Parts: sequence; structure tokens; C-alpha cells
Amino acid sequence: MRRMSSRLSCGRDFHCVPDINSALDTACKSGFDFICLPIVNPRFRREFIVGPAKKRSGALTRSDMSLSSQDWTSLVVGKISPWLQVDSEHEIIRKNSEAAFKQELMFAAHLSMPSVLLTLKNSNIVNMARCLNDHLISSYFQQHFWIHVPMTSGKDQLDRVLDIDVEVINEDGGEPENTWEWWNTFRTLCDSNKRLGVALELTADLPSEIVLDRWLSEPVKVVLISTSVFITNKKGYPVLPKQHQMYLRQLFKLDIQLILTGSDRHADKGLRSYQQYLDHLWQTQPQPDQVGQFAKGYEDYLQSPLQPLMDNLESQTYEIFERDPVKYSQYQKAVYYAILDKVPEAEKNTKKLVLMVVGAGRGPLVRAALAAAQEADREITKLYAVEKNPNAIVTLENLKDEMWGDTVEVVSIDMRHWEAPEKADILISELLGSFGDNELSPECLDGAQRFLKDDGISIPCKYTSYLAPLQSSKLHNEVRMAKEKEKISDSSFEMPYVVRLHNCHILSPPKPVFTFVHPNRDEVIDNNRYLSLEFNIDMGCVLHGFAGYFDTILYKNVTLSILPSTHSPGMFSWFPILFPIKTPMYIKEGNTLVMDIWRRCTDKNVWYEWGVRSPYPIPIHNPKGRSYTIGL
Amino acid sequence: MRRMSSRLSCGRDFHCVPDINSALDTACKSGFDFICLPIVNPRFRREFIVGPAKKRSGALTRSDMSLSSQDWTSLVVGKISPWLQVDSEHEIIRKNSEAAFKQELMFAAHLSMPSVLLTLKNSNIVNMARCLNDHLISSYFQQHFWIHVPMTSGKDQLDRVLDIDVEVINEDGGEPENTWEWWNTFRTLCDSNKRLGVALELTADLPSEIVLDRWLSEPVKVVLISTSVFITNKKGYPVLPKQHQMYLRQLFKLDIQLILTGSDRHADKGLRSYQQYLDHLWQTQPQPDQVGQFAKGYEDYLQSPLQPLMDNLESQTYEIFERDPVKYSQYQKAVYYAILDKVPEAEKNTKKLVLMVVGAGRGPLVRAALAAAQEADREITKLYAVEKNPNAIVTLENLKDEMWGDTVEVVSIDMRHWEAPEKADILISELLGSFGDNELSPECLDGAQRFLKDDGISIPCKYTSYLAPLQSSKLHNEVRMAKEKEKISDSSFEMPYVVRLHNCHILSPPKPVFTFVHPNRDEVIDNNRYLSLEFNIDMGCVLHGFAGYFDTILYKNVTLSILPSTHSPGMFSWFPILFPIKTPMYIKEGNTLVMDIWRRCTDKNVWYEWGVRSPYPIPIHNPKGRSYTIGL
Repeated sequence: MRRMSSRLSCGRDFHCVPDINSALDTACKSGFDFICLPIVNPRFRREFIVGPAKKRSGALTRSDMSLSSQDWTSLVVGKISPWLQVDSEHEIIRKNSEAAFKQELMFAAHLSMPSVLLTLKNSNIVNMARCLNDHLISSYFQQHFWIHVPMTSGKDQLDRVLDIDVEVINEDGGEPENTWEWWNTFRTLCDSNKRLGVALELTADLPSEIVLDRWLSEPVKVVLISTSVFITNKKGYPVLPKQHQMYLRQLFKLDIQLILTGSDRHADKGLRSYQQYLDHLWQTQPQPDQVGQFAKGYEDYLQSPLQPLMDNLESQTYEIFERDPVKYSQYQKAVYYAILDKVPEAEKNTKKLVLMVVGAGRGPLVRAALAAAQEADREITKLYAVEKNPNAIVTLENLKDEMWGDTVEVVSIDMRHWEAPEKADILISELLGSFGDNELSPECLDGAQRFLKDDGISIPCKYTSYLAPLQSSKLHNEVRMAKEKEKISDSSFEMPYVVRLHNCHILSPPKPVFTFVHPNRDEVIDNNRYLSLEFNIDMGCVLHGFAGYFDTILYKNVTLSILPSTHSPGMFSWFPILFPIKTPMYIKEGNTLVMDIWRRCTDKNVWYEWGVRSPYPIPIHNPKGRSYTIGL
Repeated sequence: MRRMSSRLSCGRDFHCVPDINSALDTACKSGFDFICLPIVNPRFRREFIVGPAKKRSGALTRSDMSLSSQDWTSLVVGKISPWLQVDSEHEIIRKNSEAAFKQELMFAAHLSMPSVLLTLKNSNIVNMARCLNDHLISSYFQQHFWIHVPMTSGKDQLDRVLDIDVEVINEDGGEPENTWEWWNTFRTLCDSNKRLGVALELTADLPSEIVLDRWLSEPVKVVLISTSVFITNKKGYPVLPKQHQMYLRQLFKLDIQLILTGSDRHADKGLRSYQQYLDHLWQTQPQPDQVGQFAKGYEDYLQSPLQPLMDNLESQTYEIFERDPVKYSQYQKAVYYAILDKVPEAEKNTKKLVLMVVGAGRGPLVRAALAAAQEADREITKLYAVEKNPNAIVTLENLKDEMWGDTVEVVSIDMRHWEAPEKADILISELLGSFGDNELSPECLDGAQRFLKDDGISIPCKYTSYLAPLQSSKLHNEVRMAKEKEKISDSSFEMPYVVRLHNCHILSPPKPVFTFVHPNRDEVIDNNRYLSLEFNIDMGCVLHGFAGYFDTILYKNVTLSILPSTHSPGMFSWFPILFPIKTPMYIKEGNTLVMDIWRRCTDKNVWYEWGVRSPYPIPIHNPKGRSYTIGL
């Protein structure tokens, strides 16, 4: 609950709390940050199995005066009574359970508990979802609900952790139930309310890797671990099995809290040893890589793709991109090889080159090109630095005066309108977006190639976009919130977003989409594209959209990539792109997903349209670019 | 095209029209109302299989001056060239087809043709859907598109009807393709645009009955029949096989037009004989039954359910309901049996009864009760006619003065606040809505039963609501338009509508939902209800919502029902009710549909919530009654 930046937040679960202050003291002494306890003390359990519950005299539970309001709102997570049977087939049990459920929710709200824990015992949860949804809709207090779901179902795990009257689970010892389906049904019925989070119970048996991965796309807020899952190390201390350790480290990236349940099984070491072990795992997390560090704070944060043709970038934006440690060294390498190919050793004193950097910005590519020429020991007669942003021209002119000299000619013009005084041997640009062509590199370079010699080289010479289906209720909710902000019905689902993908799961490996090659020597250049993509879905899931990436060949074997499998190490200039879909789409295991995507162009702008035709069709998104276009 | 009320509108299809005026003359002489012809004359067919299409000199097609604009807009349906391959795998063919497709659409718009015919040749139609959707979104001219789909797939049928280069259909002679899926994919990609209609081709082989029925839920605007489907009767005239006749008669109810395709195969009788035969089928349609006649013009028209507790009905509304030929005779019968049971022959001179009509309106139930008493030859000391609408009281007081006399006492009060001077033997009411309890009969009668004797009788004594899953893109679009009118995001999908169901298909037989019994002697009366219903789905389909009905036992075996299987013959007081769902839900053959519905009550109002949990979950509709409640 109270987060300290350097420490794990770990809570201690109690079945029964005779004295709340002493429970808090005990937990605190063992190093825990908060406690979990039943909202209604079990001794206040109501008798209502037969006939409508009678009004009882006396209090519902312990007094709210047992703790200060400060403590209630920072040290306590309330648990809904596990014996409620809100989905019972028996009408009386059901109605009484509903009434008690409502009472407990109201009392938790009265105490302003920031989080309430609620357990799913089996797949029979529809009425509970309705009751909670009711509460979510009526209360404006931003209380969160942690929906406790075990990773594997079975009486053992559940009983061990919480005091639950399980109605029927797996009595015939059949296939374990798919507990993700419980959660998915529950949250979908509640319209994926963003106040619902998962309280994932790490059971002794972990499910298959694919199931583990799928949970990483859910809003896991807290992880429950029973003392019974711990094993004992050589020194007699409780530790987690290797697989649990590894998975817990993955979960840590979702910024989770932990709750320890079950009785102390290492009495000689004390409960504190569990907390210390878990905190140790937290402290010894591997540091994020360079890209991870750069992206800190941007996880799942939606950004509108840049429109560099229509808008002028700000100094700050240039600065961030120029800091990329990989991109410009790759460009330098590409230019180096291109120069050597253009001017063999034998011609080095006779042949001189004309280079052009189109979209020069504040000059990083000019710098890279000049360095490449020097490294290659070849002469450049002229390097034209063409830039349309008048603010960036200021920087370029200054650099020319102070460093580059007469070799460089700064041209303040939109490359599409420039009448070049001569043709170039090498045309260098960095107009690529997260989806390759989405910042209109094809249109710009098609326009610029008229001042490239017939045997000239374009750097980059080729780029390809990629798409992969994705599940992420977090991102779905982010897009939905964008909709609420914009007040335009559904248009937020008809545009792509640049986003550092984090709390999500890629459902099938990315596939190539559109490829562009430069220079483009086609008689008639047409940058409209259309492709239909098939993905095999190995596991029941919910499709929320598509993750987009690109890779590019700058020259020969010098490449850049943001595709996960081939990502240029350390390069942070591009986050992936997200194409959302409006209605989450449930897909069964073994189905083939067929999506269609179009790149469409007019004289004024370019846009994408996308849709799904199989396993069942959905409406085409962004038809005619009605919600989103990229301006030329 | 031009509709005459008493005649079928039947068009004649042409492959190739050398002279449009003579084609019109020919068709007209044979009794046809309009002609179908290619928008672009086939002799203008462009050569573009290899390489990008070159700009050709000369006109695209015949001049728009060949006909007056009046004739273009009333006598001609344009056909998209059948040789276009907008979904070809070959990029050049595809792009050229797209360009030609667009050109033809533009020219059809230029001519203001009210309808354009477009053929689906196989399941590969995604790009064509995108192209047409583009056109639908950009043009404000309300042109309609008739999507030609054969009832069964196979090269034979298609070739016979239109001049089509079929790419590959059923080459391996396998299972016939499900052509409804073609249509469903196409229209879903186009977001179920209401300007899309089906041009259903009646093939020689008809599919199974269940498939035939499913088509009746689609917006079929026109039916194509080839001359080759006709057989020859004894007199040598073309007639349709029995099954085709029967199905065509069902289609007639959807207000379709016909198009005759193929060459004349009865040259001795002339083409006119086909038109005359089809018109004969039209003319000899069976007349609609009483309910059908009453409902004329109300088909698929959405009405908000009455809120008689909150609003006062108008004179006109009373008048319509009083005209029901069945309802009041059933009430009279029920009261008759109740009176005889209360007062056996032996007590007829000693025992006298007190009757109450609660919600007396303008008196039809008072009239029925008095008639029943007379028929039973039993005496009534008093009949209290309780009514809250002061306007209806005027009628009641007049009837008392003029006809009923002192036996009847008119009480101008809301029954819920009335302090009755004595208790009744029989309490008569008609507070039922299309979904039984949805006009709050339970709440009213629970309140009124305090002035019913302990052994008193309530008429009605029991009622039950029913639900059945339904497919109807027509109704989905009607609800969506209601949304656009209301400007409240999606709320129109969270309320029920009273509607004469017409262009729809019931996907599985209705099942009972909520039952109420009166008088209700429970210690604590709770009219909250919750039920989960399972339906087996026999065929791939799209769920758009649920059709609701009710039946009631007035007394003993005297009943009323609007359930299709047991509908009281001739009774028109209630149309069914529709519970829509927001996003159409594709369901595969053999799946089980599980829906949940709640009836929820507070002191102030009552509402329903509903959702689906399986085959995949959707959000609960109308949570907390946020979009719709019925006021107490």
C-alpha cells in the first residue's frame, strides 16, 4: 500500500483478527507493510442459510474506531467474506449472500479502504460480477478491487490459502479449469472497468509458460503467495522454487505488491524470514537494459505518432532522438560502405561525391556522413543539408559556420519543392516512423529521388513494417480513456499510437506487412498497399489490437530494427506502434486470426484502415481516414 | 423500382445492352417495371490484365444522355462489371479492378441510380467491402447497394445467372460454401451500413430450411430468379417448383422486388409469361391474419414500452387496446368461472360478492366483470373501479351514470394509496406488459392485495415472461439509429423496445424467464429476480438481441399468450419486446448460448440488466438501470 521506491510492498494475510491493533503490530514487527483482513469479522457471520436473513441486533463487525482513519486507508486491505455464495443456485442463499456482499462493500467504502480483495472460487461468477459492477457504477470513490484468482484450480491450492467453502471444483479430478477464463468472464461482464485488478495467486504448481505469459497482459496488482509454496534452503530459511522466482521477477515489472498467506512454517526463523526473502528477490532484480531505462515512465503511455511533415519538431524532441547511441553510428557505417562502393581506391583522387541529407534536422546525419567520408578517406564536393523547419536551420547554419565549412550547403526548403542545382550520388534520410512508412518516408523519398543520380544510392534503401496480434486490457482501457477525453465517439479506436508496450502479451509472432524500396524506379509509383495476414492463436485469449514494428536496411548489411527478435541493441529512438480495435475480440485456442490492413494515399494525406475477417468479422476501422490521417 | 401498391415490382436483367431504349421497350412490353444493366457497357471493358491500365481515350460507357434523368432514376438498376477482381491476389489486377470499381460507382452516383447491384462470387471479398465502404462513407447521396448472393454456391448457378469469371469455387466438388457467411462478412466489414441490402439469388437447389429461415432475418431487398429455375406446367407455361413458390411467398412479406435473369426458355409464350406468373404469385398471397392486419405498418418499428404508472395514457391508446377482440372475452370468461367458484348454486341467493377492478382505465374490465356476473346469474354488492388517471375517471363516471348504476363505485385514486372501505372477493387487473411484469404488475398487485380477502382471487393469478435469442440486422440498425437520435452513447442498446418482430429470425425456441403469482402470500415479498438461460444454436448466426414474450393464467384454464407457439388467436394488444445487445455477436454452429437476466427493484423503480457469458462474455447491459428504468 504505502510504496517506498527502493523496497517491495509486502502485506500479511489474516483469516481472523481478534484484535486488529495487535495484528498490525505483529505484521509490522515482521517487516510487513500492510495487512489483509476480513471486512466483517467471522464471528459476526450471519445465519441465513434457511429463510430470509432476519435483522440481527448488534453490530455488523468491529467498530471503525478500532483504527485511525489514516491507518484504515494505508495499512489495511479488506477481504470479502469467503463464505458468501452470491452465485448459489438456491435463491435464498443467493439473495442473502447478495445482501451481505453489498453490506461488506458499503462498509469497506465507509472505511475508505483503498483496495478490497475478492475471491473467484470457480467459473460460476456472473451474479457476483453483476453485484460488483453495480457498486463500481454507483460509487465515485476510486476504491480498487483486487480479484483473487488462483493460477491453477483445485481444492488444494484454494483451501490452503483462504478459508473457503468451495462448492464444487474438479470433484471428478478432471482437467484443471482455466482460471484465466474466470477472470476474463468476470471483468468483461464488468465492461473491463479499470478499477478491477488481478490478485494472482502463485500456486505450488505453475501452469504452462504460455499461460504464465498471458497473465502478464492482465492488470495484475498484487500477487498472493502461501507459505506452503516455499521450500527450505540449506540454511533452513524459506525460499521459493526456481520457476516461481523467475516468474515473480517477471511480475515485478508490473509494479506489483505481494501478500503472504498461510501459517508460519519456519517457526524457528519467524515470519520475518519470508518477508526478507521476498524483499531480497525484489532488491536483486536485474537492472533494466538501456532501452528499458530510457523508457522508464513511458510504459503503456499512449502517444500520437509524430506528424513531422505537418508540424515542426521542437528542440527538445530533436535532442532526445539525437541522443540515440546506435542509430547514428549505424548511419555512419552505412554511408561509409556506400562511399567506398561509389569510389573505389583507384578512383579516390579523381572521383568526388555529392551527398544530400534530406530532413537534416539539427544535423546528426550531416555529422555522420562527414565522419563516414573522413573514415573512408574520400572527398565530398558538396553535402546539401535540406531541412524545412526554419528553427532547425538556425542550428544547421551555426554548425556550418563553426565546424563544417563550405562543403556543407544548408538549404532551407521543403525537399518536395526543392530544385536541386545538381544530382546526388547518395541521398540520406531518416524519415521512418515506428511502423516504417507511417511518417511518409515513401512519399518524401519518391519526391526527392528526382535529384538522385540514376546510379545513386538511397540510405535507407528498404524498410518493412510488421504486425502482431496483442492482448492488453491495460492498453484497451488507455485507448478508451482517450476516447472519453476526446468526446468523439469511438474515434480513439481508429488511430494508431506510439507506445512502449509493457503490460501486454503478443499472441503470435509478428509478420511482415508493407515493404518500400528506394529509389523506386517503377513507371508509375503507387504507395497504396493492401495485405491480409494470418496468425495462429495457440491459446484462448482476447484480442485488443495489433503491435506494429519495422526494420530497415540502411545499406547492404547495415540495418536498424525495432522488431523484438532482431531489435538493434540499445537503440531507443522508436517505440512500437499500436493499432487498437474497438471491441475486444474473444478468440478460442487453435483458431486462425485473419486481419486485413490497407495503406491508403491521396494527394493530401495517407492513412491506414484495418479490420479482422476471421474467426469472425468486425467493422473496418478508420474507413476513408475518418478518424486519423497523416498529412502530406 | 416504382412501386404500385397492388402489383409486384419485377425487373428484367440484361447482360449486354446495345441500345438502352430498345431494351427498356422490350422489357416494358413484357410487363416488367425496370431493367438491370451493366453500368459500364462490356464493349468498353478495359484491358489491364498486364501492367497498369493506360489512360484510354474515348468514353467510359454510353452517354448519360441516352435516357432522361427521370428514367435513369426510376427504370434502371446498374450492375457492377462482373469481371472485376477487386480481391485478386495479383496486385496489378487488384489495383486496376479497384480503379474500375470506383469509376463505376462514381458513374452510378452521377446517374443518381437509386440502386446498384454488386455480386459476391466467393468468400474472398474483403477488399471489395473496403472499397464499397469507402464509397458509402464519402457519399451523402442515399444510393442503395444490393449485394447479390446465391443461396447455394457452385459454378453452375452463378454462371447461369450472370456473366462471371469465377476464380475458383468448389473446384474439388467439396461441401458447398456457406454463402450467408460471405454476406455476413461483407456487411460486418461495412459496419452493417443500412444502405446495404441483399439481392438473394433463388438457385435451382434450395438449402435446408434453417438456412432459408436465416435469410428471412436479413435485409433482402430483391430476389433474383433465373429462367432456368422455372419448370413447365401442363399448359406449357413457366412456373416455379413448389418449394420455390413457398419460399418466395415468405420473402414477399419482406416487401421485396424481383429480377428475372437468363434467356427466355419459353419462346412460344414469351417473357411476359414469366412476369405474369410471378405477379400471379404476388396477387394470390394469403391475406395476413387479424393480428397481421392490425400490425400493418408497425413491422420492426421500435416503441418505448409504456410507463402507465408514471404517465397517463391517452384516449387514443385506450381506444386501441379496448378494440382487442380476444382479451376482454377471456377476462369475462375468467371472471365468470371465478364467480361460480366463489358462489355455488346453493348459495346464490345468500352470498353476494365484492369485486374490484384496479386500473380500470375507461372501463372495459368493468364491463366484462358485470357481463360475467350476469352470465353467471350471481349478485354483486359492489364493484369498485379504481383508476389513477383523472381523464379516464371522466369516462368511468359517465358510464356509471348512463349504464352501470349504483353497483359500480368509481374511485379516483392510485391503487397503491387507496384505503378500501371493505375487502374484495375478486381483484381484477390488466397491468401486464409485453414482458409480463415490465409494466410493474407485480408491484401494483402486491400493494393492492391488502384489500383482497384471505380467500380472494386475483385475475390474473399468474404470469410468466419468455426470452429467445434473435438475429435481425434490421432491428440492430433501428436501435442504432435511436442512439444517433438520442445522442447518448450506446444507451439505446440498454433498453427494451416493444416491436412487431418481422425481418428477424428466432435462433432457438423461447424459454421461460420470470414467473409471478397473485396473491403473493410470502412473508417478505421480493420481486427481484435472476435467471441464467441456455440456448442451443443450430447454425452459424449473429446474435443481435433477445425477443421477449409472456403468457398469463387469468383464472384456471383461461389464459392469454403472446408466445408464438401458443399465441391467443386474434389478440393484438401486445407486440413482443426486444432486449438488444450493443455489439452483434457471431456464434458458431453447435455452440451453447448462455445469457443472464436480472429484474431489479428499488423503492423508486424497476429495471432489467442482461448480458451473455457464453460462448464468450459481453458487458452487462443497463447496469444499475443507468440507461432505462421503469418508474414506480
